[in-house]
Amino acid sequence: MSLSLNQWTTRRWSVAEAVDGCVRHGLEAVGLWREKVAEQGLAESVKLVRAAGLRVSSLCRGGFLTAGGLPGEEGRQAFAAALDDNRRAIDEAAELDAACLVLVVGGLPGVKPGEPLPAGFTRDVGAARERVAEALSVLAPYAGERGVRLALEPLHPIYCPDRAVLSTLGQALDLSLAYPGEQVGVVVDTFHVWWDPRLFDDIARAGDRIASYQVCDYLHPLPADVLLGRGMMGDGVIDFAPITRAVLAAGYTGDIEVEIFNADVWAADPDDVLATMKTRYAEVVL
Amino acid sequence: MSLSLNQWTTRRWSVAEAVDGCVRHGLEAVGLWREKVAEQGLAESVKLVRAAGLRVSSLCRGGFLTAGGLPGEEGRQAFAAALDDNRRAIDEAAELDAACLVLVVGGLPGVKPGEPLPAGFTRDVGAARERVAEALSVLAPYAGERGVRLALEPLHPIYCPDRAVLSTLGQALDLSLAYPGEQVGVVVDTFHVWWDPRLFDDIARAGDRIASYQVCDYLHPLPADVLLGRGMMGDGVIDFAPITRAVLAAGYTGDIEVEIFNADVWAADPDDVLATMKTRYAEVVL
Repeated sequence: MSLSLNQWTTRRWSVAEAVDGCVRHGLEAVGLWREKVAEQGLAESVKLVRAAGLRVSSLCRGGFLTAGGLPGEEGRQAFAAALDDNRRAIDEAAELDAACLVLVVGGLPGVKPGEPLPAGFTRDVGAARERVAEALSVLAPYAGERGVRLALEPLHPIYCPDRAVLSTLGQALDLSLAYPGEQVGVVVDTFHVWWDPRLFDDIARAGDRIASYQVCDYLHPLPADVLLGRGMMGDGVIDFAPITRAVLAAGYTGDIEVEIFNADVWAADPDDVLATMKTRYAEVVL
Repeated sequence: MSLSLNQWTTRRWSVAEAVDGCVRHGLEAVGLWREKVAEQGLAESVKLVRAAGLRVSSLCRGGFLTAGGLPGEEGRQAFAAALDDNRRAIDEAAELDAACLVLVVGGLPGVKPGEPLPAGFTRDVGAARERVAEALSVLAPYAGERGVRLALEPLHPIYCPDRAVLSTLGQALDLSLAYPGEQVGVVVDTFHVWWDPRLFDDIARAGDRIASYQVCDYLHPLPADVLLGRGMMGDGVIDFAPITRAVLAAGYTGDIEVEIFNADVWAADPDDVLATMKTRYAEVVL
């Protein structure tokens, strides 16, 4: 197990720069984002991480599978488009030999992340969750054939309207259990789950279904854009050590990825961010 | 069962004005706040609601019981002060013959609502939850002797740092079960619980433990001050009718209270707010 840089933490860096940064700071793993991989080129990205000897701890992200819940032809087309995009994401994860493809499953059908509610969105959160299960029944076997593990990420309930109708670890875990563990696992991201009264029971229950352990802090008060409420470990309210111990006790042997969405972190020198991240990881997370 | 005005919805109104407003709009019940009752005077408030023939559907609020988790003398004093304040709240609820006293249990010890994290707060959310259970063991019998029902309110996880370490209905329900149902029940507030994948199971499990059913919508995107993200029913993402049906099926026979914290609603003419509230209640909630 080792510390991994999720490249969105150093958002201004390309894949090439993030790979160089990881090597420069002695990290053995990196979590990549599809947008950045596309900018660098998939083949070039594969070449860079292999030449550097880095593990790809995750590829972020597939998902957004719920728009199929819109009525009629619009729903059918959105569902087909989402499946196509996720098959491409699985293919990319296979090429990169990523430990998992993170799935942010999507919010209420028709609601766009961070945007005002549009006419014609749907409020049935239960039906949206059924759309996720339906999409997974198509994508899990496809991933399995390519040796890719899908990682269902429960998001903090604040993101339920627009980003993920999976809101708890237990819910994600229950959904994963219909598939072999090597096809579908779950993400434990401290920001999203720290408040959950069932967290420790569900981490233990998840066992080797834990496909990714991501850490960052939960800031208080949250900034106006709640998406950017993720902070450097130690700057917020999360008590990391007990969560880390529980994840390890459950049998997790993968990398620990630091994924921070934060305007100040993004404005800072990425090399300083990596240095701070390493210090805080040792002091606060372990 | 009937529609009740939680007086914070018409925040500029005193108790006297809220009582008059309820009568003018044909409502049979009102939910009162302690601050407003103190301004009006407790005895005068009792007289006003009785003369108007209104039920008091709830008194808001007791709670903030977790500061006892601070270390040493500071913690002991904070715990004693919180118990004293809650005993006074119980006495007031008894005088008003309120259907319940709503408890917002408090966040992490030392964290103040909406304020930046202070030095010396504690991050152990599990220990904070134990402080709530400890306080309840003192307050429930006191309430029982006075015929007051405490209503544990789970708050949306966004408020876990500073307002309530009770984050799900199931968690509140489990805590209540150590006491007779007439001493300790739970609040179902749509804003706080709509996203919960276990909501319908836990409403059914709660049965006649449901002491209060409060409705308002969950706005998207949330405003910069997340406390004010509560909207008029129909303006946000919540699908009310299935939740209302589940609460009724569980055996709830109390009033349905509309409690909205929202800058626009507070700026509007309270009589217009009540008129809209009645319309939306009939169209969206029932």
